[in-house]
Order: sequence, then structure tokens, then C-alpha cells
Amino acid sequence: MSGARIWHGGDLEEARRLFPDAPEPWIDLSTGINPIAYPMPPLPARLFERLPSPADHHDLEAAAAEAYGAADPAMVVGAPGTQVLISLLPALRPRSRIAILGPTYAEHAHAWRGAGHEVAEVASVGGAGEADVVVVVNPNNPDGRMLRRGALLEQAEHLRRRGGWLLVDEAFADFDGDETLVPVLPDNAIALRSFGKTYGLAGVRLGFAVAATDVAAMLRTALGPWSVSGPALEVGRLALRDRAWRKANHEARAEDASRLDALLSPLADRAPAGTILYRLMESSRAPDLFSHLGRHGIWVRRFQHDHRLLRFGLPGSAESWRRLATALEGFSSH
Amino acid sequence: MSGARIWHGGDLEEARRLFPDAPEPWIDLSTGINPIAYPMPPLPARLFERLPSPADHHDLEAAAAEAYGAADPAMVVGAPGTQVLISLLPALRPRSRIAILGPTYAEHAHAWRGAGHEVAEVASVGGAGEADVVVVVNPNNPDGRMLRRGALLEQAEHLRRRGGWLLVDEAFADFDGDETLVPVLPDNAIALRSFGKTYGLAGVRLGFAVAATDVAAMLRTALGPWSVSGPALEVGRLALRDRAWRKANHEARAEDASRLDALLSPLADRAPAGTILYRLMESSRAPDLFSHLGRHGIWVRRFQHDHRLLRFGLPGSAESWRRLATALEGFSSH
Repeated sequence: MSGARIWHGGDLEEARRLFPDAPEPWIDLSTGINPIAYPMPPLPARLFERLPSPADHHDLEAAAAEAYGAADPAMVVGAPGTQVLISLLPALRPRSRIAILGPTYAEHAHAWRGAGHEVAEVASVGGAGEADVVVVVNPNNPDGRMLRRGALLEQAEHLRRRGGWLLVDEAFADFDGDETLVPVLPDNAIALRSFGKTYGLAGVRLGFAVAATDVAAMLRTALGPWSVSGPALEVGRLALRDRAWRKANHEARAEDASRLDALLSPLADRAPAGTILYRLMESSRAPDLFSHLGRHGIWVRRFQHDHRLLRFGLPGSAESWRRLATALEGFSSH
Repeated sequence: MSGARIWHGGDLEEARRLFPDAPEPWIDLSTGINPIAYPMPPLPARLFERLPSPADHHDLEAAAAEAYGAADPAMVVGAPGTQVLISLLPALRPRSRIAILGPTYAEHAHAWRGAGHEVAEVASVGGAGEADVVVVVNPNNPDGRMLRRGALLEQAEHLRRRGGWLLVDEAFADFDGDETLVPVLPDNAIALRSFGKTYGLAGVRLGFAVAATDVAAMLRTALGPWSVSGPALEVGRLALRDRAWRKANHEARAEDASRLDALLSPLADRAPAGTILYRLMESSRAPDLFSHLGRHGIWVRRFQHDHRLLRFGLPGSAESWRRLATALEGFSSH
């Protein structure tokens, strides 16, 4: 895998290697994927057997345009996950200077650098200087830092003058989307939206780019036809049109995030941050806590760039909440 | 879709637009997809919900390496369909001269040209001249032309001297694979293998590249992690290891291909050609036959480059065979 040296959440094999004596089943809190999944609809055989039809693909993109507030479905490009879009975008530009607002999701820098661009991590958009492409994960992963829409629009305008792009990865904007750029997207901005995280269906592989129609057309060409599978087309268009599920789930997960903060705060050096789907805690004892939780069969996300940080996804069952609370109490008291 | 102006099989909406009065259900013979699908295994919820694990992805590639006879699983790259591999490969080379043995599957020329390469269609590998990349679909789609392994190896050796690649699209080599290059793959050759066609599961989106490990690594980087969905990983590794199904299905489809030839021959100007999964007929009356079949709800594949050609996939049920035979008889007699 290209990301073999980049740490990612969700790999329980790694958890089992590090903590071979931990109790099963593991509780995987290492991702920002919603633990309460959208219920999969029945999947008739034809969805697996036939080539996905252009009409179904367009209908999925129309559903995504409605859900995200895009002005025109032609601006929305469905893909087998946002990751492949992150990987493809660097091939669409000549060698450029890329400024990535960091620290953030590591695959962006990996992809641009791998395609031969000059990549710098900057601490603020003000530090982007003469970059041709500015990459912002908004809200940011893992710390939840949120740039205001106004600041993003200003940055896009600045980039436009030199033919530059603003790439906004809105992977977690379904539930934390006050500043989403999609409804007012400038024609030199590209927004990425993830389906699997919000709907708890990461294995389906579905994500979207929203961009001006000329950039959208380049992405369609880079993906080729039939990029989204039959099952992903089916669940995607149903789920994206299900406003009631999204609203109820949004509220319930926000309550979960508060509940998780209450458990983490006593162990943290400052108030936890992040988004509704993950909480980041900072603690000088983080490496010990990571190991303590690992020995209790609870897998959380640590970070190469800062060993004081741990990211917690939301538990998805009463039993997971109970085991997490017990393990955290056990850590406090020793 | 990028291929909007390229004709493809499998789009029944187009059939219904052209022949609004045709009887339903349509019989779709416009693709080379096996009409008898591999039975889908049960798909537990975790396959849709969790990120596909690196271990499962590697196991799929190991299963593909065994099925195709690759020397090393590290040479095999799983992807969400071969189409995305066709689209990605042109980004992995500086501007090059590309010779495509044609006429053939149009997406190859489209992808290389779209990425800024200089593309020429040639009638034989001897005509490839000083090309840097030679593309051969083997067996060829639609006419089944098969290049010998020895000729391909010679061509690869010739290309090696200038740092060139031989790209062999073996989409139909599972059932027509006497000349497959995979078991003896030179390190400057890339073979593509399709899962969906052989196993009748085109909606799953699964395909493979086989290449020397450095090219394989470039493709992995271009795709990024989690490129294959959970359901595709599951059915892929089961089906690719099911030698008994493949053997029995191979024999049954070969009989179907002969049966189809017997129906088509009386209307054809020469003996039908192609592969086990599709038969190409040549007839001066092809445009009329296309319309006649369309009015009878039978959708076959016509070609922009030669209006005397029609390609027929295999019927998948007794009823489909009966309707096809009746429609063909009706055409002969008027």
C-alpha cells in the first residue's frame, strides 16, 4: 500500500501485533468513522453483476449535490473513496508549489510530493506565501481546527490571480460543516467530501470532489467510466437523500462526543478538541495511556508528529462505552 | 463520464432511447461480461462498515497472483476495475510516443491522448516503429486477434532498449489465455486482468495490474490505500481461488460461444471471430440487423469504426437464447 509508512486508523492487525495478549473483541476507536452505520438497503444481484449505468452514476452525483448544497450536479464527481481523488489531483497540474496547512491528514503531502511537486507544510494560510496550491483540511484532522469561509474565499481569490487552486478536504464537514465552501465554491477551489465516515460505511468506498466543471471534467477523465461500484451507487443515493437519518444521527453523535469529552477531560492537559466523529486529547501521559488502552483491547490513534496526542473515535455500543470508561478509570487510579 | 463520446456496451438506457417500443425485458448482449455470474457469498456488515484492512488487500492480491500465474504477489496490484488502471497509467510516464494495436478498446487511446501523449493506432506490432509504449489488447476486443507470446516477448525486448513499456490488456485472457504474458512477464511489461468479465460481476469493480515491482509500486501510490471495497475483497479472493468454478464455467461458456456462432453464421459474410465471452460478426447488413434486434428488445454492440461489425455477448438463459434465435430467424426471412 502507498500509505504503508503513514500511520492510519482502522488496522486491527497492527493492534493485535502490538498487544498480542489484549482481550478480544477489540474496540476500534482509531478512526473517525461513524460507529452507527446507515442501514444497508437490500442489494439485488444486478448491482453486483451489471456495469453501473451512466444514469445511476449521474443520479448519485445529483443526490450528493443536493446533500452538500452544490450549485450544479455537473460540479460533483463520484469516486471510489476520497483517497483516490487525493491521489489523482496532483497529476492534474504541472509541477507546482504546494502549501499544506498542517499538521494534518498525511496522505495529502504524500500524494503531491510523490507526483513531483514542491510541498511545504505551513502553520497558517498566511504562511502559504507564493504557493500555487493551498491544501486545507476543514475541519482539520486531527485537531478540529476550523477556518472561516470568509478566510477561505479570500485565499481562493489570492490564488486565482496566479492560476492556483484551493483544495479543501471537507471529509468531516457533514456533521461539522458551518464553514463548508461547497455552496459558494469559487471556480478555482476543489472540495472533497467523504461518504464512508458520516454514514459509517467506509468499506463501500465512496467519496466526492466538488469543483468547477472544467476541473470536474479532468477528474472524470482521470477516473474513467464506472468508477463507482453498483452497491455504492445504491446505498449512496439512498443515504444522501435521507435527511431524517442524517439529522437524527448528527444529534446523537454530538451527544456521544460530549460524553467522550467527559471521560477524557480528567486525563487531558487541556480540553479535548476535534469534531463530532473524533476527539483529540493532549496529555504528557499519552504514550502510557495508548499502551494501557491497548492492553485492554482498545485501539486508539497516536501520531508520529506529536506523541502527546491521542485521537479517539466514538464508541458504538453500551459495552464499548463501559469498557472504555473502565479502562480510563483504571489508568487514572494507577 | 469521460467516455461519453466513446460507445460502450451495457447501457440499456441508450437502448431504450433508440428503441422505445421494444418489448421488455431487454436482453443485453452488448458486453463481454459472463452472463452466468459467480455466486455472491454472504457479505457480513463489517465488509461495508470497516475500512478494508491491508491484510485482506494483500490476500486478494495473493489470490490473483495464484489465479493468473504471477511469479510474485508483490507484482499484482488490485484496483476498483481495470478501467481506472487504464486511466492512471498514462500519468506514470513523461510525454511518450504510444502505439496502440488497433482497432481495439477505445479507452486506451482516449486515456493516453488525454494525458498529453502522442498516440498512433497501428495495424501490427511491426508498425510500432520508434514508439516508447506499445499497447496490445490480447486477445483483442472486438475481433479476438491473438498475438503469440513469443512475438510479445520480442516486442518487450525491443522496447526495453529505449526504456519503453509493453502494455498488454488481458481483459479476456481468463478463458482465452493461451498467450498470456503474466507467468513470464518481462520487467518492462504490464498486464491488465479483469475480474468482473470472467466472473460476471462487473458492478463489483475489481481488476488487476501485473507488473515489475517498481511499476507496481507506482500504481499503488497512484491509487492510494483502500482502493478495493470490502465486498470486492471478499468475493474476489473466494472466486479467484475457486478453480473448479472457473474450469466448469470456462467449458460451459465455450459451448455457448459455439452455439452462438451457429446462430450467427448464416447471416455473416465470414465465420464469426472473437473470444469465448463475445462473438464478432461481419455483415453488410449489420446496421439493419442492429435495428431489427433493437426492435425485438435485444441490445448488441455496434462500432463507430466499422458499421459492418456487430458484437454479441452470450445469452444467459433459455428464454434469452430462444428470443435471440427467433429474432435472427425473422431477420433471415425478410
